[in-house]
Amino acid sequence: MGKMMLKGIKALLPGNEIKVCDIYIDGSRIAGIDKAPAGFEADRVIDGKDRLVIPGLINCHTHSYMAFMRSASDDVPFMDWLFKGVSPIEDAMTDEDAYWGACLAILEMMKSGTTCFSDMQMNPGMTSKAVVESGMRAVISRGLVGSGDDEAGRTRLDQAYREQEEFKDCDRLSFMLGPHAPYSCDEDFLRIVAKEAKDHGMGIHMHLSESMSEIGQIKEKYGCTPIELAERTGIFDSRCVAAHCVQLEGDDIQIMKDHNVNVVTNPASNMKLGNGFCPVPELMRAGVNVCLGTDGAASNNRLNMFSEMELLSLIHKGTHRSPECVSAKETLNIATINGARALGMESEIGSIEEGKKADLAVLDLKRPSLQPENDLVSELVYCASGYEVDTVIIDGEVTLEGGRVLNLDENEVYEHTAAIMKRIRG
Amino acid sequence: MGKMMLKGIKALLPGNEIKVCDIYIDGSRIAGIDKAPAGFEADRVIDGKDRLVIPGLINCHTHSYMAFMRSASDDVPFMDWLFKGVSPIEDAMTDEDAYWGACLAILEMMKSGTTCFSDMQMNPGMTSKAVVESGMRAVISRGLVGSGDDEAGRTRLDQAYREQEEFKDCDRLSFMLGPHAPYSCDEDFLRIVAKEAKDHGMGIHMHLSESMSEIGQIKEKYGCTPIELAERTGIFDSRCVAAHCVQLEGDDIQIMKDHNVNVVTNPASNMKLGNGFCPVPELMRAGVNVCLGTDGAASNNRLNMFSEMELLSLIHKGTHRSPECVSAKETLNIATINGARALGMESEIGSIEEGKKADLAVLDLKRPSLQPENDLVSELVYCASGYEVDTVIIDGEVTLEGGRVLNLDENEVYEHTAAIMKRIRG
Repeated sequence: MGKMMLKGIKALLPGNEIKVCDIYIDGSRIAGIDKAPAGFEADRVIDGKDRLVIPGLINCHTHSYMAFMRSASDDVPFMDWLFKGVSPIEDAMTDEDAYWGACLAILEMMKSGTTCFSDMQMNPGMTSKAVVESGMRAVISRGLVGSGDDEAGRTRLDQAYREQEEFKDCDRLSFMLGPHAPYSCDEDFLRIVAKEAKDHGMGIHMHLSESMSEIGQIKEKYGCTPIELAERTGIFDSRCVAAHCVQLEGDDIQIMKDHNVNVVTNPASNMKLGNGFCPVPELMRAGVNVCLGTDGAASNNRLNMFSEMELLSLIHKGTHRSPECVSAKETLNIATINGARALGMESEIGSIEEGKKADLAVLDLKRPSLQPENDLVSELVYCASGYEVDTVIIDGEVTLEGGRVLNLDENEVYEHTAAIMKRIRG
Repeated sequence: MGKMMLKGIKALLPGNEIKVCDIYIDGSRIAGIDKAPAGFEADRVIDGKDRLVIPGLINCHTHSYMAFMRSASDDVPFMDWLFKGVSPIEDAMTDEDAYWGACLAILEMMKSGTTCFSDMQMNPGMTSKAVVESGMRAVISRGLVGSGDDEAGRTRLDQAYREQEEFKDCDRLSFMLGPHAPYSCDEDFLRIVAKEAKDHGMGIHMHLSESMSEIGQIKEKYGCTPIELAERTGIFDSRCVAAHCVQLEGDDIQIMKDHNVNVVTNPASNMKLGNGFCPVPELMRAGVNVCLGTDGAASNNRLNMFSEMELLSLIHKGTHRSPECVSAKETLNIATINGARALGMESEIGSIEEGKKADLAVLDLKRPSLQPENDLVSELVYCASGYEVDTVIIDGEVTLEGGRVLNLDENEVYEHTAAIMKRIRG
């Protein structure tokens, strides 16, 4: 790692201010903005002319291994999607498949400006390998399913710790515990995971209140909502990243606010599977930290945070019949600094500030979708498609240049992921 | 114009079948599929390896001159958007500005696979000039506002005929009459326009039932819905392309079905301005021809039909809580052949068939968003962002190659559109 300078570049700074500045990067960190650190001599200067640099986008909920399942099961009822579409492919997957899936996911995310993703995984080891090689940043959660009275859940927890130990030297990787959902973990197992998280000081990444059938099932079994179940089992006593939260009722929002739960909204996935809309404006009004995710490619089917920002900003304007709802500025915060906060990394990533990690996406402004530059904050949300991203820097290293991912062989990834589906589906 | 062959290319054929084939183009038309016309010798062969050709997308409702107003007025109430944002810019516009606006719109549309657009215009002459030069196809409607008892409306109608006459030699251009909306044209003027359309055998392009305030205003003035007003003034006696149709009630849908009215849904614009959702599934169920539009860049703010397809397919699944609602196949039809039908051109464009115009978009499949190729129909709607479009052919001519628009100078367009906003806003 060396010293790099972004010279005379328009930058999206905290408070969503756009300003032309010089950005100095030393090693993995932003060492100065408009003021060179003493004795700074750049090994590399990136010309900022006609370019806009933004904090790398943070995808707070995905399943990277699913990338090769893209469009394998669409336009069908939820149960057919899950049991006829996704599950048979998951059952036939090998460890190596998970690696290639993660590589494909990383290609798509990096090319569209994502520099960090939070992944719920069946194979954290293979995903971690892809993260290490590609130069990405990720927070990995092993998906845990189980009940309090069997050994399988305990075994998976131990596996999660071993995986964490194996990759402890890569500081672009961190780990959380991933109890899958209230319908796949029973109350006792949730209590065990909650205690483990507290004892180990780990965060929790969990699906919560996604579908109406989940609500019905949990109410019937426990007489409470999934949010209430999570609260009473102690899940919310650690930093919790709760994905979906579409079906909220009663005191759910207040409970999440009281416990500083972070909600990851996944607009495309929730619509595509017919689950509806997360009450984002209501959550924000209550002061809950809302961040953004793509979900996996089996349900979205794209891992493009620009698409997701567009959806997020538009759908609530539509359902609330208000053009002021979920503004461009709010949307950008949700996709950057709010995500960093949810992952416990707000002092490290999520904004362009001196001392933070240099996780940056540089857009080429000479594209028709970004011209003229009337209001770049607004254009990032309402106009950009992601393909305008030209350069990506993660942890101070250039990982994408001229739209090409540097550390992965794109064609190799395409060949392997195509071969996986051919092997599984014939 | 010469003879061109697309060799061994995956093609989206009628019925949404994907098939590898050879496509022969002679002059402006598709001369054969998998069977060369007698004596065919290609001047140019496009290699179809790793490529998918689809019918060019048809954007049935936009205002191309607005492209330079992109993000000039976002996240504000509708009336502020219109009267503080858009109107002052429109008032300060020159004829030449309309030309550069149309050029910018064409750049964005062509790069994202649109080969034909239906434009409601204040300056059809300047837009037509941009269409002629760029190689695009368009259907232009002069926006008409007026009342039955003043001369201004009549004058605008005469202007519309003159413009049509001026460009009659370009067969990529055709014209419709564009009575703006029920709140900007009074009943008598609508009757005049309806009669003119019928006498001249012209189609009508009109905004209808966009906002709740429009509904309130028309009910108060005429005691009926905008749809009923359009019916009783004879607007629906000619082929009518009705944009928006968000606020439908009573017999509105049945009236539109009975008169074969074509509905252009504009999902992004309707959400962004807080108007809500067009009842697309209900319209389709009633047998109404639904097509798709982006609206102008002042309200969307992108002119990308791939974004629009994504929104269309997802939002109705969300509002109807059904993953089967507005399928990928239906969405592709809406964006292609249904648009051709609405514009009265279904025998000429909208599908890849022998004898039809060669209006085609070729996508590069070696992009992470389209890999693996599990279901390309589904991937076109749920995964593609538009940036995968590599080559565009319109009327048998290559107009975009390697992602570059051939007949317009991109940087010149960016400079001019930036200068317009600088001049107007300072």
